[in-house]
Amino acid sequence: MARIVMKFGGTSVANLDRIRHVAQRVKREVDIGNEVAVVVSAMSGTTNQLVDWVRGISVLHDAREYDVVVASGEQVTAGLTALALQELGLSARSWLGWQVPVMTDGVHGKARIEEIQTADLIARFAQGQIPVLAGFQGLGPDNRITTLGRGGSDTSAVALAAALNADRCDIFTDVDGVYTTDPRIVAKARKLHRITYEEMLEMASQGAKVLQTRSVELAMKHRVRLQVLSSFEDLPGTLVVDEDEIMEQELVSGIAYSRDEAKITLRQVADRPGVAAGIFGPLAEASVNVDMIVQNISADGKTTDMTFTVARTDLDRAVKILEEARSTLDYVALTADPTVAKISVIGVGMRSHAGVARKMFEVLGQKRINIQVISTSEIKVSVLIAEEYTELALRALHSAYGLDAS
Amino acid sequence: MARIVMKFGGTSVANLDRIRHVAQRVKREVDIGNEVAVVVSAMSGTTNQLVDWVRGISVLHDAREYDVVVASGEQVTAGLTALALQELGLSARSWLGWQVPVMTDGVHGKARIEEIQTADLIARFAQGQIPVLAGFQGLGPDNRITTLGRGGSDTSAVALAAALNADRCDIFTDVDGVYTTDPRIVAKARKLHRITYEEMLEMASQGAKVLQTRSVELAMKHRVRLQVLSSFEDLPGTLVVDEDEIMEQELVSGIAYSRDEAKITLRQVADRPGVAAGIFGPLAEASVNVDMIVQNISADGKTTDMTFTVARTDLDRAVKILEEARSTLDYVALTADPTVAKISVIGVGMRSHAGVARKMFEVLGQKRINIQVISTSEIKVSVLIAEEYTELALRALHSAYGLDAS
Repeated sequence: MARIVMKFGGTSVANLDRIRHVAQRVKREVDIGNEVAVVVSAMSGTTNQLVDWVRGISVLHDAREYDVVVASGEQVTAGLTALALQELGLSARSWLGWQVPVMTDGVHGKARIEEIQTADLIARFAQGQIPVLAGFQGLGPDNRITTLGRGGSDTSAVALAAALNADRCDIFTDVDGVYTTDPRIVAKARKLHRITYEEMLEMASQGAKVLQTRSVELAMKHRVRLQVLSSFEDLPGTLVVDEDEIMEQELVSGIAYSRDEAKITLRQVADRPGVAAGIFGPLAEASVNVDMIVQNISADGKTTDMTFTVARTDLDRAVKILEEARSTLDYVALTADPTVAKISVIGVGMRSHAGVARKMFEVLGQKRINIQVISTSEIKVSVLIAEEYTELALRALHSAYGLDAS
Repeated sequence: MARIVMKFGGTSVANLDRIRHVAQRVKREVDIGNEVAVVVSAMSGTTNQLVDWVRGISVLHDAREYDVVVASGEQVTAGLTALALQELGLSARSWLGWQVPVMTDGVHGKARIEEIQTADLIARFAQGQIPVLAGFQGLGPDNRITTLGRGGSDTSAVALAAALNADRCDIFTDVDGVYTTDPRIVAKARKLHRITYEEMLEMASQGAKVLQTRSVELAMKHRVRLQVLSSFEDLPGTLVVDEDEIMEQELVSGIAYSRDEAKITLRQVADRPGVAAGIFGPLAEASVNVDMIVQNISADGKTTDMTFTVARTDLDRAVKILEEARSTLDYVALTADPTVAKISVIGVGMRSHAGVARKMFEVLGQKRINIQVISTSEIKVSVLIAEEYTELALRALHSAYGLDAS
């Protein structure tokens, strides 16, 4: 017997038929003798509608009232899913965040779970009852509803799995797993059977948005074995696990890309101490995140060229801030380019192997793709290229690292 | 300074514009120095949608899960209304049933309020904060959400007004008050400025469905002064108060009607002890409510004719039950007639005046309207007539009792 948390996202509970299908899927796990806890999102579309209403009433809204309104979506699906399970002859009941309780901090709108009290849930497991937890919500220290931020139901599920010491946390969604790269671009992309938490974090933050980043971090922290799988097809998914669980680690697990980047270059900035703080300080104050940064060595020792990337949606704001600071920063020219893409080669195996980066540069060079910026981490090499080469680069790299499906 | 509970029904909070309008209306009361608590229903249409979903998943649903799903509608409007009040610069916060808490019994789906703990609300009044209570919902002894049955937000408002010892409970709805009769039928119907609880109960149960019956009973019990008024037009409404508050009580306050009735006659039932129990016992067991009952004196001392009314929607079921019991009841013929209407003349003044019933019979006689069944109470005379005469009877009686607007 295993104890499993099964989480169903918005498209998996989008209507009554889908909810009935979820109940059938849960019943299969129960029928083979497993203890199951269910976590549900709001019906797809519902949360957007609720958020629109809140914003329509109040732009700078009280986050406590936002939480009251938006948390209602998961409340509805928790009740309906419990009913659907009951219709199949199973014992089930809904649990709202405040009932468990799922205790969070007081940061309304993006609260963090601090503790889930599971004694009552575990006692009911013994009676064969299936708890259906409304995801995304908790109870703050002010005795008011909190929500965990968009995609927070993944985090609810992982936190519940950790608190219940579950054997596995299955995340049912509208994709059937994590792929070596985007299958819409690279036809030969393969589904990964296993991937490490670290790789998953890089894949997710690089655009393969399957799981909320925080939920993966939480799973890594508590060593919760995660599985991403489709609620529409009956196929094995991708298991996200500790490195130790993966016996034969491949050098490179996947190629990620992001078109959400934009490049800014400041030419001939006066090269004196404090110049980086002068550039990035005002951007940070305006909540503009800077990702890749390259500072060229100055030829004359007096000026330097500074290149960095920001989210494409932040580009206009970033340019405005930098233009306002021009007199202080003392640069000669500012160029902005939104037509760039970031390509990343990811794999925990590269920690112990040189040559991954070199191969990347060689392959891109052979395809005459110019590398604009490079950044590296322990398990990742990223390059910035012109956006138009995205597909070409992905296919060439996918092949070169031996990831193509045979 | 007065303390006022303002309750807004589903059409009054149907969309963001209406909710903003509600906030403006509340602000007016606050601006003249009153302490205000707000109670809101779900946006119109929302509760029906939620109920449809529950029934779509499970016909014989667990009422506890029904409550979880359906209570979400009021949760949304409570949050949005608090935000709209904040946008006007007022201090406001939403309160869900479990937060106050509004303690109810454990009868999920139609719970009764047992206690509302108001210490926290009153402390916040002192700080100028407006509580916005989600109507229709409470907390059961099982620590789960309960709902009060359809129209229960009226009851929430009256119970809150009683618990807060409020000076008045204003029920904002899509009609602008209680009329002497249905203005869609009688053009000369007048809006009543005041009406007693007892009359309101008769008016409501007779088809002038403005307030939920239970809320009026509760108001009567706790002497809560109720006002029914329009949230769309800025007009005085109808005040529902104790008899003592009405100095010049008119003889007749209003004429109500109901087309939801059907008549059943059993001819030549054996007239022996226990026959009434033999007829009405099986109907009661099947939850068929019987309203007016007439038993004719039998000519031969051996048989009797029994006529009574049931809800038109129950007619087929009632006939089936009585046909099945024919051998026991030993009647000669059963006739059923769904084309009847009940007309009621209502007024606390008639307690001390004979002649109200006589005038009714005279007026109907002059119009050649046959009276099929009569029933009376202390403040009401009701007759059953053929449905086709409904409008004629209402207009004639309205005129005869001096109710026509000049």
